[in-house]
Parts: sequence; C-alpha cells; structure tokens
Amino acid sequence: MKNQASMKIFSLNSNQPLAQKIADSIGCTLGECSVRTFSDGEIQMNIEESIRGDHVYVIQSTSYPVNDHLMELLIMIDALKRASAKTINVVLPYFGYARQDRTAKPREPITAKLVANMLEKAGATRLLTLDLHAVQLQGFFDIPVDNLFTMPLLAHFFLGKYEAEEVVVVSPKNSGVKRARELADYLDAELAIVDQQYHGEDGKNDYVIGEVSGKVCILIDDMINSGRTLAIAADVLQKAGAKTIVAAASHGLFSKGSKEIIENSAISSIIVTDSISGIQEKEIANVSVITCSVLMGEAMKRIHENRPMSPLFKLQ
Amino acid sequence: MKNQASMKIFSLNSNQPLAQKIADSIGCTLGECSVRTFSDGEIQMNIEESIRGDHVYVIQSTSYPVNDHLMELLIMIDALKRASAKTINVVLPYFGYARQDRTAKPREPITAKLVANMLEKAGATRLLTLDLHAVQLQGFFDIPVDNLFTMPLLAHFFLGKYEAEEVVVVSPKNSGVKRARELADYLDAELAIVDQQYHGEDGKNDYVIGEVSGKVCILIDDMINSGRTLAIAADVLQKAGAKTIVAAASHGLFSKGSKEIIENSAISSIIVTDSISGIQEKEIANVSVITCSVLMGEAMKRIHENRPMSPLFKLQ
Amino acid sequence: MKNQASMKIFSLNSNQPLAQKIADSIGCTLGECSVRTFSDGEIQMNIEESIRGDHVYVIQSTSYPVNDHLMELLIMIDALKRASAKTINVVLPYFGYARQDRTAKPREPITAKLVANMLEKAGATRLLTLDLHAVQLQGFFDIPVDNLFTMPLLAHFFLGKYEAEEVVVVSPKNSGVKRARELADYLDAELAIVDQQYHGEDGKNDYVIGEVSGKVCILIDDMINSGRTLAIAADVLQKAGAKTIVAAASHGLFSKGSKEIIENSAISSIIVTDSISGIQEKEIANVSVITCSVLMGEAMKRIHENRPMSPLFKLQ
Amino acid sequence: MKNQASMKIFSLNSNQPLAQKIADSIGCTLGECSVRTFSDGEIQMNIEESIRGDHVYVIQSTSYPVNDHLMELLIMIDALKRASAKTINVVLPYFGYARQDRTAKPREPITAKLVANMLEKAGATRLLTLDLHAVQLQGFFDIPVDNLFTMPLLAHFFLGKYEAEEVVVVSPKNSGVKRARELADYLDAELAIVDQQYHGEDGKNDYVIGEVSGKVCILIDDMINSGRTLAIAADVLQKAGAKTIVAAASHGLFSKGSKEIIENSAISSIIVTDSISGIQEKEIANVSVITCSVLMGEAMKRIHENRPMSPLFKLQ
Amino acid sequence: MKNQASMKIFSLNSNQPLAQKIADSIGCTLGECSVRTFSDGEIQMNIEESIRGDHVYVIQSTSYPVNDHLMELLIMIDALKRASAKTINVVLPYFGYARQDRTAKPREPITAKLVANMLEKAGATRLLTLDLHAVQLQGFFDIPVDNLFTMPLLAHFFLGKYEAEEVVVVSPKNSGVKRARELADYLDAELAIVDQQYHGEDGKNDYVIGEVSGKVCILIDDMINSGRTLAIAADVLQKAGAKTIVAAASHGLFSKGSKEIIENSAISSIIVTDSISGIQEKEIANVSVITCSVLMGEAMKRIHENRPMSPLFKLQ
Amino acid sequence: MKNQASMKIFSLNSNQPLAQKIADSIGCTLGECSVRTFSDGEIQMNIEESIRGDHVYVIQSTSYPVNDHLMELLIMIDALKRASAKTINVVLPYFGYARQDRTAKPREPITAKLVANMLEKAGATRLLTLDLHAVQLQGFFDIPVDNLFTMPLLAHFFLGKYEAEEVVVVSPKNSGVKRARELADYLDAELAIVDQQYHGEDGKNDYVIGEVSGKVCILIDDMINSGRTLAIAADVLQKAGAKTIVAAASHGLFSKGSKEIIENSAISSIIVTDSISGIQEKEIANVSVITCSVLMGEAMKRIHENRPMSPLFKLQ
Repeated sequence: MKNQASMKIFSLNSNQPLAQKIADSIGCTLGECSVRTFSDGEIQMNIEESIRGDHVYVIQSTSYPVNDHLMELLIMIDALKRASAKTINVVLPYFGYARQDRTAKPREPITAKLVANMLEKAGATRLLTLDLHAVQLQGFFDIPVDNLFTMPLLAHFFLGKYEAEEVVVVSPKNSGVKRARELADYLDAELAIVDQQYHGEDGKNDYVIGEVSGKVCILIDDMINSGRTLAIAADVLQKAGAKTIVAAASHGLFSKGSKEIIENSAISSIIVTDSISGIQEKEIANVSVITCSVLMGEAMKRIHENRPMSPLFKLQ
Repeated sequence: MKNQASMKIFSLNSNQPLAQKIADSIGCTLGECSVRTFSDGEIQMNIEESIRGDHVYVIQSTSYPVNDHLMELLIMIDALKRASAKTINVVLPYFGYARQDRTAKPREPITAKLVANMLEKAGATRLLTLDLHAVQLQGFFDIPVDNLFTMPLLAHFFLGKYEAEEVVVVSPKNSGVKRARELADYLDAELAIVDQQYHGEDGKNDYVIGEVSGKVCILIDDMINSGRTLAIAADVLQKAGAKTIVAAASHGLFSKGSKEIIENSAISSIIVTDSISGIQEKEIANVSVITCSVLMGEAMKRIHENRPMSPLFKLQ
Repeated sequence: MKNQASMKIFSLNSNQPLAQKIADSIGCTLGECSVRTFSDGEIQMNIEESIRGDHVYVIQSTSYPVNDHLMELLIMIDALKRASAKTINVVLPYFGYARQDRTAKPREPITAKLVANMLEKAGATRLLTLDLHAVQLQGFFDIPVDNLFTMPLLAHFFLGKYEAEEVVVVSPKNSGVKRARELADYLDAELAIVDQQYHGEDGKNDYVIGEVSGKVCILIDDMINSGRTLAIAADVLQKAGAKTIVAAASHGLFSKGSKEIIENSAISSIIVTDSISGIQEKEIANVSVITCSVLMGEAMKRIHENRPMSPLFKLQ
Repeated sequence: MKNQASMKIFSLNSNQPLAQKIADSIGCTLGECSVRTFSDGEIQMNIEESIRGDHVYVIQSTSYPVNDHLMELLIMIDALKRASAKTINVVLPYFGYARQDRTAKPREPITAKLVANMLEKAGATRLLTLDLHAVQLQGFFDIPVDNLFTMPLLAHFFLGKYEAEEVVVVSPKNSGVKRARELADYLDAELAIVDQQYHGEDGKNDYVIGEVSGKVCILIDDMINSGRTLAIAADVLQKAGAKTIVAAASHGLFSKGSKEIIENSAISSIIVTDSISGIQEKEIANVSVITCSVLMGEAMKRIHENRPMSPLFKLQ
Repeated sequence: MKNQASMKIFSLNSNQPLAQKIADSIGCTLGECSVRTFSDGEIQMNIEESIRGDHVYVIQSTSYPVNDHLMELLIMIDALKRASAKTINVVLPYFGYARQDRTAKPREPITAKLVANMLEKAGATRLLTLDLHAVQLQGFFDIPVDNLFTMPLLAHFFLGKYEAEEVVVVSPKNSGVKRARELADYLDAELAIVDQQYHGEDGKNDYVIGEVSGKVCILIDDMINSGRTLAIAADVLQKAGAKTIVAAASHGLFSKGSKEIIENSAISSIIVTDSISGIQEKEIANVSVITCSVLMGEAMKRIHENRPMSPLFKLQ
Repeated sequence: MKNQASMKIFSLNSNQPLAQKIADSIGCTLGECSVRTFSDGEIQMNIEESIRGDHVYVIQSTSYPVNDHLMELLIMIDALKRASAKTINVVLPYFGYARQDRTAKPREPITAKLVANMLEKAGATRLLTLDLHAVQLQGFFDIPVDNLFTMPLLAHFFLGKYEAEEVVVVSPKNSGVKRARELADYLDAELAIVDQQYHGEDGKNDYVIGEVSGKVCILIDDMINSGRTLAIAADVLQKAGAKTIVAAASHGLFSKGSKEIIENSAISSIIVTDSISGIQEKEIANVSVITCSVLMGEAMKRIHENRPMSPLFKLQ
C-alpha cells in the first residue's frame, strides 16, 4: 500500500533564517538538501532524502541576487518533479521581478509573467506568497495562488501607539493609495498622498495632497529598495509641517546605498517584515523587523490540512 | 503560388457603428459575416467570404450582454481558425470582466484570466484593446497585446478649454490616482482625490483630499457603469466648494438606472469614447461622445504593416 | 495530516430542481453557492464554503440562455480551481451547442469542440453527461467522459404499455435510425423511418419507409426543440395510416412556439426527461416528464467511490 | 532575403500510385524521400532534399498495415518539423482507426482521437482527408481539417446509368441512412434500409424497410472491409425481390477473405475509389475503381493558393 | 467514500513471460485484458476489469514488431485514461527506437523523442525502464522516469568466474567505453576498446586499443541486434591474442540472421536479460538469459509504496 | 501591405565580440538594445528599434555568470514575443547547464531539459548552437535545433601540422572516445584513451589505453572548465612517453584556478574557439583562439534564406 503522503519543507539559499522560523512555528524540521555552485557558476542541487509521493514545500525569496535565487528554485522544482513529489508548493515570501508586470514602454518584457510561466512549466503545483506588488499577479498563474497580506501585521504594530486623530496615513506616490487606505481603515485615520510628479525627477515640484501639518505621518509602501521614494516623500511631508514621520513596508530590499539615503532622511523609524533576509546585517539605524513566519507557517499548515485560508486575512 | 495575404476586417454584433467608422478610417470595407441566434438561443455564425491565408481582424466589445458577446467572439475565432485564417487579431475596444482581475475574497474566480485563456485557447493570435482596467491584464496573455490609451484623446478634448491654474484633476476613488496624474500632466494641473471610505457605503463620510474650492474639477475614471461613484464624488466636491464639475472616462457602460443618477448629479458634463455602443440612444442629457475609431484604425494599419505602435501613445 | 477529501455537490442556475433531486437521491445536501449578476450583466460567483482538497461536482445544463449558463459554469470551474478543489467534476445533463459538432458548410465553427476545449482549459477534470447528441463528442475531450443513456429509462416507460406486434418504432428523420433501433430492440419491435427530404423544406414530399398502417408509432429523437421535426413526422405517419402516435426524447428544450406546434400535431403524448428545467411551467398539454435524477445520482456515487459505471447502461 | 516558400509533395509507402496521380494532376513531381526498415523492424526515414521554409504535403493512407503506416507518417512529420518545414500538411485519403471514435463499451479507448492527438503533437499543421467515417472526427482536431466528399464522384458514376424511377438507394445498415439520403438526392431516388438487427448475428432475422421489389438497388457505405455487411444486405434485398444489386463505397479495404465473400454475394458490381491501394492486385471479379486523385490534387492546389474549397463539394 | 486506490498490473503482447515473472515476484496476478486485431489490422483493446481510481502498471517492451507494440501501448494508455485510472505507469523493459535519439544526418527525425511525446500526450504519468540506450533519454520526458541498470545483474553473473587480473573488459565500439568502465569497476579489471573505424565498413582496418593478449575478454554492449558489431570485435580480439571471448548485453534483439552470425563468431558465450521475449525460442547455441523480473518488480513495488529507488542501483 | 520581414540580429551581454564578428561576417549591423541591471539586481531590457514582423536572431552564450546570462536571454525572448517578432531564433554558441543532461544520482534535476523547456515556453522558435555536450540534447526540444560542429574548424587547424603517423588522438576520459574518433578520421590517425578510473579521484591509478610513446598526442574534449581533466590526462601521457602533448576543445570556460592548472601541466598548447568570451583577457600562456563566427554567421544566413545547412558539416 502507498505510504501516507507527508509534508516535507525545504529551504533554499535566499532566506534560511525565515525558513527555520517557519519550520519552528509549524513544529517540524527542514528537509535535508544542499545547493552548491560548480566552479563555472552552475548550480548543483542535492536533495538528501526521499520525497516520493510527499507534499513538498520549498521556501525561497527571489531577492538579490534574483537570477541565482530564481534558478535555484526552478532547478529544485525540476528535481522534485522528477523525484516524484506528489505536490510541489512554492513558498515565495518575496516575489522578485514583480514590478515588471506590464509593458510600460514599447517592446518591454512582462518579466513577472515570464517568471510565472517558468514556475508553472517547471512543475510547481501551487504558490504561496506574501503581499504581491500588484494583486493582479495572481492571474498570471493557472495554479492556485494564496497571496497573504502583511497589512494585519503592520497595523497590529501601530495600533495603540498613537491617538487616531493625530495620525495620517500617507501614500508616498500616486499608485499606492489603495494600500494606504487599508492601513488607514485599521487605524481609523485619514489619508494623504505625496504627488510625485513625472516632469521633475528631482522631486522638487512634489507636494502633499491632504492635511499633514502637526500630524504623525505613517508612510506605507509594499517594498523599500533604495529608499529614495520614501526619503523624498518624507522631505515633502516635513516641509508641510509633519510632526513625526515613520514608515512601513512589507518587503525590505535595502539595496546598495539605501543605508545612507534612509539614515539621512526625515524618517524616524521604519518597520518591515523578514520576507527578505540580511536586513539586520545591514545595520540601518532606524529600521526594525517583524516576522512573517508565523503567518506563513499557519498558511502552510492550512494548505496541508485542507482548511480555509480566510481567517488569516484578518487582524489577529 | 500562394495568394498575397490580405487584411480582412469583420465586425460582430456589439458595436457595429464603431466598426464601420474604423473601416472607414482605414479605407476598407467590413467583411461579410452574420451572427444569428437559433430558436433555442444558440449562436449560428456565417462567414460569407473566403479568408484562407488572410490576416483577419475581428472587432467586438464584450459589453452588455457580455456573455453573448463573448461567446460570439469565441465562436468566430474558432470558425476563423478552422477556415485557415493566417492570423486572428482580436480587436476589443472594451474588455468585459476586466474588473474581475484578482481574488478579492476567498474562493473568487479571476474571470478576466479565464477570458484571456478562452481567447488564446480558441485561437486568437493577437489582441488589440483600449485602456484596460488594469495594465497588468496584458500579462494574462502570452500572445502580443497592444493596449491603446484614450488619455491623449481625452486630454486633447480638455486642452484649451480652461486655464491651467483653475483646473484640478480629481480621482473619484483611491485606486485611480495614477490615471488622474496622467491627465493632470497633460493639463499641467494639480491633483485631488475623493476618499471613498469602505466603512460607509452610503458615502456620507467621504471627503476630498486636496484643494478644490473655486476650481474646475475634472473627474476621471476608466469606466462609468451606474454612475454612482462619480455622482458621490461630485457631491463631495460640490460640498467642498468646487466651481464646476465635469467628468471623463474611456468606457461608457451606462447600465440601467444610470441616466437618472447622472442627470441628478452635480456633474455638468461627461465625455466618453464610443468603445461601447448605444450611448446616444440612451439620451443622457449631459453625456457626449468622442470617437476612438481613428486611433484604433491607425493601430490596426500599423499592426498589418509591421510599423511601430509607439507614436500612438502621444497627444496628436 | 490532510483532511479526508469529501464529495461536495453544487448546483448553478440552470436546473436547480434536478440538482436538488440528484442530491436527495444521493442523500446529501447541495453546497452553498450563489450566482449573481452585476448591473452591467457580468456574473458574480460566490462559493460560500471551503472546498480545499474536496471532490467537487457541479451540476449545470447548458440550456437556454445557453451563453449565460455556459459562462456561469466556466467561471465556477475557474473559482474551484483557484480555491484548490481536488477534482472538478462537471455534470452536464444537457450539453448545449452539441449539434454544432462538424463544419456542415465551409467556414463554420465546431462550437461543440470549442465548448469542450473551454471546459478543459478552465480546469474541469471529468465530465458526466446524458445522451450526447453524437457519441463522438466524447472524443472532443481528453479528460474522462461518462455519457449516460436515457434509453433504458424511456424503454422502461413503454414496456408493457403495448403488445410488441402492434408497435413500430419510428425515426422522424434519416439520421436517427440507430437510436430507433435501440428502442426497438428493447420493445422487440420493427422499425420505420420518415424520410425528410432535403429538397422540400415544407415537408410535403416526405414519406415513411416501412410499415406503420394500423400501428402504434413511437417516434424517438434525442431532443425536442421547436417540435417541428416531430410534428411533420407525425403528419406523415397519420397519412400512412398510423393508429396512434406517441413520441419520446431525452431532452425537452421546447423553445418559443413549440407549445402550439406540438399541441396542434398528430402526436397524442410525449415523454421527456427533466434534463432541462421549466418544462412543466410551459404547460404543454400532451407532454409528461420522467426524472433522470436517480440515474445521474447513482453515476456520481459510482464515480466518487471508484465503482464501475457499466451496470447503469442496462434496463433497471 | 528568404527564398520563396515552395509547395513540396512527398509520398510515403501506403499508396504511391495515388500519390503519383495526384502529383500528375497538379503538374509537379514527388519529392525525394525513402522509408526503409532496419533489421529490427524500426523505420528509417530519409528526406533527400531540403525543405527549409517550404509548404510540405505528405500523402499517406493509414490502411493495412495500419500501425506501420501511421508510424511512418508520424516519423515523417517529426523529421519535417525538425528540418524547418514552414507548414506540414497531412494528406490522408483514408483515415485508419476512424471507426474507433467513441467508447462503445466501458473501458474502450477512443483510438481515432488518440491518432488525432498524435498527428497534432508530432507537428502536423493541417489535415486534408476524404470522406471521414464520421464527420464529427473533424472536431477531434484543433488544426484546420478539410474533409472532401466522394459522393459527387460516386453519384457522377451512376448518373444516367438507370432511370430514376427504377432506382432505390439502400443503406445496408441502420447507421448509414444519411449517407444514402445524399446519394438518393443526387439520383432523385427513394430510400430503403436493411435493418441488421443486433440480436441475430447470423443475419437471418434481417429485413428491408422500404420498397425494393423489381428495383435496381444501389447499396452505399463509406468503406468495405470484409464485405460481409454488404453481402448480407444484398441477400436480404434479393429475397425481397430486387432486380439488380450494385454497391458503392469510398474506401475499399478488402481485407483477407473479402474476395470470396464478395464474389459469392448477390452484388453484381461494386465501385470504390483508389483511396487505398492494392485493390486491382486482389482481382475481385466485380470490383472497379475510380480515382480520387483529381479531387485531392485540386484541393491541395486550393490550399496552397489560399483559394476556397467550397466548389469541390458539388457535382462536377 | 472513495475506494482505496489499488495497484493493478497489466501485460500487453510483447513480453508476457517477463510480465508473469514480474507479477510473481511482486506476489500479485496480472489484470485481465486482451489485445485483438481486426481483420483490417487495427488493434482492439479490451480491459476486462474496472480500474477506476487505481494505480495501473502496463508492461510492454517495444521490441519487434515495434510499431504494433508501440501502438498497443498507446491505445492501452488512452483506454486507461478515459476509464479513470488514477496513475498510468508505463513499464518499458526495452525502449524501441531509442537509438534514433539525435539527427545524425540532416533532415533526420528524432524518433525517440517522438515516442516520448506520444507516451506523454496519450496520458502516461510515469515511466519505468531498463538501461536506456543513452541516459539522456530521461530528459526527453517531463514525467518522472526511473531508469534501472542491468549492470549489477551482469556484474553479479561474472563475479568469481575469473581472476581479476586475467580479465579485460572490452567496449566493442568507440561510443560505449563508459559502460565498459562501469563493468570493469565491478570486476576490478582494466579496459580495452575495439576501434571500429568509419572509413571501412568491412571492419578490416579495425584494431584493438589496450592489452588483450592472453586475457579473458568480456565484451559489453547495451543491445545485440544482428550481432555483427560483437562478431567483428571478437574477430579483432582473437587476432590480438585474446584467450577467451565472452559477451554481455542488456537487451537481446537477435534479429533475423543473428543466429548464424553469432554462432559463427569467436564469442564463446553471451549473456543477456529477458527484457525482450523470444530469445530461447531462437535457440542460439551460445546465448543464455538471466531475468530482470525481480529487479523490475522490486522497482514497481517501491514506486507504489513511495519508497526510494536508490538501493536498486547497487550490486545485490 | 505587410512590410517585408527583415533579419535583425541582437547581441546580449555574454559575448559581444563574437556577436560583432558574426554580424561582420554576414555584412549587417547589430540591432540596438541594452540590458541594464536595477539597483536590486533585476534585469531591465531595452530594445531600441521596432522588430514587428521581423526574423530576430539573439546571440548569447550562457556562460559564467550562467544564471544572469540565461535570464537575460529569457527576458529578451519574452520582450520579442510581446513586441511581435515573426520568429525568434536563439543563437547559443555555448549552452550552459548542458552537462546536467541526466539524473546521475537519485533526485537530481535534469537542468539541461529545464533550460530547454524555459526557452521554448518563453517563445523561442528555433535554436542554433555549437557542439552540444551531448547530441541527444537536440531531442530536449520540439523546435528545430541546428547543432553546428567545431570539429572541421579544429581539424583544419591541425591538418598539415604533423605527419599522420606521428599523431595519436587521445580522449582524456572514457566518455569522449567518439569525439576523438571523429578528429582521428580527419587526421588519419589512431586513437588512445586515458582511463580516468572512478575509484581514485586523485588520478594516480589512471593509465593510458593505446600506444602513445614517442607520439604527438592531441587531447580532444568538448569543453575546458578548470583544466584538471586535461592536466591529469597529459600527466598520464607524459609518463607513457608522449613526445608532445597538445589539446583542443570547442568551448573554453577557463574557470577560476584554471590558468595555474593549465600553465603547470604537460600540455604545450591549447586551441579553443571564441564561443565563450574573455579567454584572451585571462592571458593563459599556452591558449590560443580560433573564431567560430564565420561558421555561425553562414548558418544564420542559410536559416534566413531557407538554404540547407548540410555543407557546413564538412571540412571547408
């Protein structure tokens, strides 16, 4: 008779601390596998235990270096498929290339769709991810996609910290107002938007729409890369009389040069999740980290046990 | 020897006036085809001329009744494929079901992706469309998609009508700020946003972010269905002291009841394109229509002649 | 551990009375879901309970209005796929567009194949259907198709009603002789065919092949749409001296105008199944209905329990 | 610059005389290729001339030995695809396995669909065929299928041979009445059907429906395999007083034993096309052959020149 | 509730003795199915027991007559898919057409890939095979492929038969050195290669590379077809002073004429497995057979029970 | 009318000198495109000219850093597909991950097949490559693959340099004997093999099979990575009395550390092609480079002009 199909969780190289925390939160151990690089740069995958007929979960953030991390993931999926995994559940706390989700100019690729196609073609049977840059990315897939939200985590962090009336939630750019509205709903606060105009890349024509004078401004975005968008917005808010400026984002990329930009900005503190590793090591003075591991672990358990995901979309 | 592949344009039932205008702008005639309905409601397709080896363009807006119009289109594509069309270019001035582009709640479909899959599976080899509800919908397809923008047409309509300083472009809801920013760029104007809060479906808590007092407010959206979103926003703007309120949108659905809502609103005039037919027949007092036919016809010619589309994205 | 995969049955809008009867015959309740229509005519699907990992059965006849009912079904399949149903079993008591199964004239679609492709592409993993217009439609699919037959039900209805020697089974047209032969086998009767000639649409040249004088003629067809085919055949039989004329069919479409045609015909009574709803409401004097619910319910149970279907193909 | 795409016609092993006649009717030569068999029975394909960028037509009837002829065809398609043919047009005068088009009993394959899938997967881009066993087989494909009819050829053969009133067209079995009706229309004749009952494999209960006494009976079927169906029907007709019995069919398989059955039957003469080779060699006394080569050649020319196929469906 | 999914093993016609031995080694019976041939050469498949929801294993070597055996297999897969098998595991002890794995000359097919595509498209969900001609053939598939090795079986046969120092393992041609190295490793022996030069099909320029004088030479190849390659190599070895010449191969095709070639060669004995049937019946004097049934049966059990395959790759 | 489809050649980042040489040999210019990297490591593609309806050739070696170069290529293909290229011809002078072409150990990926699948899924319509590690890799694709050989180039380099009788061609390992045989045929030389045994990674048990004493030994391999394989073989040859040891390979990877290994080896000179860039910059004393640009350019012209490739497989 067939052996019972087990849940097996593997972590690739991009975010092993998070993977370990997720495994701990579920109460299981990470599977044995290693990813080495040959002298010519090619990736060598070693899965050290049988996964025949098992439900396999592979945790990998396709963050920097994105191409290496993506290929690691695709190669792992190929190996799992050929080694007869029953299902291959890709867990992507951070989905690289997500911003390339449309052809903004003629002859541009839609790299996010390319990545989606690669994952499906390689053999992924399900995707679990966190706060996609655009929710429409779900529709890039024909396999089930569970897109978790960090907003309840971030809102929980701010709740009780300030009086509702002294807070205004601010979108640092035109395209993120809906996200800001969600946080504002949790905090019962009003909105403002920093209008980052296109004809003025230096930001000197930027201005704030809405009332921020004397207020605690919470800037909210989905990801922080160089920090420049937030820094410019903070500058605009400061000029407009903001009392305190803090920021929150799901994904902290903190690419090269971001430490300086952020530490020199008007932002007093930033909160991000651990969807991308290496943030602490960068020692950016005003950045702190909350974990998304319990949320993701709970989602993986619910997937494995065929229980509904809906309770995870609410403030805990 | 193979006969030279010709360009053949067919119109289905949803918007024949626009199709005729497009054909006129290209300087060709519409192909002979008819779509009948059997007594049991099934669609019968008749293509009355040979299209073997031709480049075929099928014009259809999947507007109300959306399911019939969509099935007409899919059946036509199947017929063209089996009748050996060389390429099947679907021209969708309005893409129905575009708003169902994500799972907003658990166990929701992504119907826009379903529609994309149906079009590709039926045999479409290219899509030409107009002002997609979300630009990410391009990535729902693996065939080339040319998404034209109505913004240059709408901007052209407003240019010179008002002094730049007396105008403010207003997004009637949180999620359309980027679109408003584009129009504001054309008109050199500032922005405002009507914050339609979720916990107040009656709209009585809504308020405007930004300065509108004494201004000409141009509300901009991608589509007008019942008109309720615009009417509420106009009410908020009026209370905030707006001088004049006008509105613009790419697609005028004007579903049942919209005539009353719009005529009773604070909006003095509305401009839409003819991407959806039947607007004039509805005789809504303050609605006027500009045509997208020249833009679409020019795009079809460029596709057929392998010339770049980029010039069409600028103000003419 | 994975929850046990359950059987969940949902009914869409086309034939809820039959779906309820099927559920009753299986001894389970219908799942909670609702299908609404937005003001612009787009369908909104709501599945009100978790179906993660379950074996889902969706009951829908793609009868009038066929395009709406088909889109309901496709959207439901998309929703189920994304919500992680383990298998998606489409139950189609009546398969709309089945007659468009070949290109009878140049440049015709094969809409039945289009529908098959749409169902598979959307995510259906199995089809259960009833008395397909042509058995070859099974081959339009690459997923398993179980095609049940109504003939045992109809034969059971007639058995014992008449002496074998006084009965003749009549095909009302050239193409249905095989079906008539099957019923004749059950009733131990001879055959006759009404030859509806092509060059005479008024039917005045039609004649019967075979002996019907003084006989009870049972006309048999797979579906009744306007009733015209049966009415003409009955007229021919009456002229040829038939004693009594009754009719039977699997699917009663009874489109507009059929009531008058049928009530004015020489047919004394008609028997159909409830594969399509709304027959009773039409109050056609001489039509009665037998249910296919027990047959379909038994088939669904056998599918779910991995038991063979073959016993269902025999007279009960 | 690209060389002009040429038309190249190749013949495989099953019916080289027909292929040669088709090439002659088009006025071109057959391409150089050879098909050998290794000592272990594997097929070796040699295409002796470049076909890069060409429109290639491969003529092959998948008649006895069907598996070898089918594999020859699939291997040829693979070779053409990899050698960069622009289009691969499969010309199948006889489509083997066409009768296995449904699951007549539980757990039967639908081999005709399997064959269709194999042809498409191997790389065929179009199919040209002749008088498919069931027209629904077109829908087994998603590539364009042109299904030519032999009926005009067969009707042309009989026209003027007999007075209309002395002829009756007879279907030798229940399922072929529609085909008989078509021939009857051409000849302005009435119909009869031999009812070959299922519960009597010896045929002794078979009888004729319709008037045949003193008539010239033309039995019509799509293919003749062992000849048994026709021989039994002829016997029934003879007993019912038929004056003369002739037969016609599109495809003459004439499998082992058929010579004896046919020569000993009541059929005075049989006409078939040359869709399958080797008929003459079998020297069956009363069988003669008309060629389908001009019809097929004309169809291939029309495909190559993008001209409509419809004129070929009428009596020449 | 779903019935428990069982393991069901079927044998087609090519190697029933091996299939029976495999079933015996597993301790189960072969499923009831029969494969008949119609009078026109078409294959008719009969699966005599329900396999709904079962894990089905189909044993078939695609040896001579390869096209018939391959079509049998494809038709069986189609039947199993439509009859709702849960998984379809193809067991191919010998993979016909494996040597056609590249385009050695322009415009050649890659028939091995064609076969792989056919198997996958028909519905195979897994492949178990034995000593593929080239290991790269695994990559022709996207389903899991378990490729067992006969080398431990063959090595076990030779171990202890000779002193290590008196043995040299010889590759009979340039391309099989890696295989020879593997056997040499097991036997702790040195290597030699017979260099069969291309410009000399008569073999008279062939020579041996390495020391064979006075040694027991074990020629090793993956398959023996006509035996000519081995016979020529043996001749070269004999001239170079070899003491004894024996040979081993996984697959014994022994095509027509091989008996004479082999019996007249310098080879004293040959060992092959029973992956292909009919070897004993050919009564070649110096050929003996060892069974691969226990190895294959054990692999099938491990697949069914989700246990790792790795222990099977070692000397037992 | 459609503009004539042109040939457009683009080079990505991995080997621009070779791309330039290829363009020069064809007599055309490289298309305008640029590949930048965002601050977070994501690739940004810019195609600076219209390619609508054109035949596009993209030159890229997937050499170190392989993952970045591969993703560049896939993203470019996606961009070309969406920008309506008529055909997308991938030119891969070096195919990275080619050695991962089988599962050597349990649970290994077949990364070469993964790469093939990615290229096809992204939209490549043809592949042109050079001396694939295993010729079977052609069969990993279902699009046409033209695999050019460097052997005529390398043979041409050696012809006339030495007397035939003083040369022996040596395979540095067991698996490359066929390649050595090909070079030996060109040079009319004999073969030898260095038997690199598995149970001795230090190579101290390695020995040469064949006669090399006093000979000029030409080691031949398909690629040189660290150089270790060649260095060990050279050592063995030197001990066996070789007079001179030279080496040739198609692809010079020369990964980190190779300079030292090679310069310290017994090899007096190495010849490779410029399929991979950066060799000169590494300044390895005894390595020289011949260009494959003319060969590849000629192949691209033949593809574009639909002329046969076969003349390129012979010594020029």
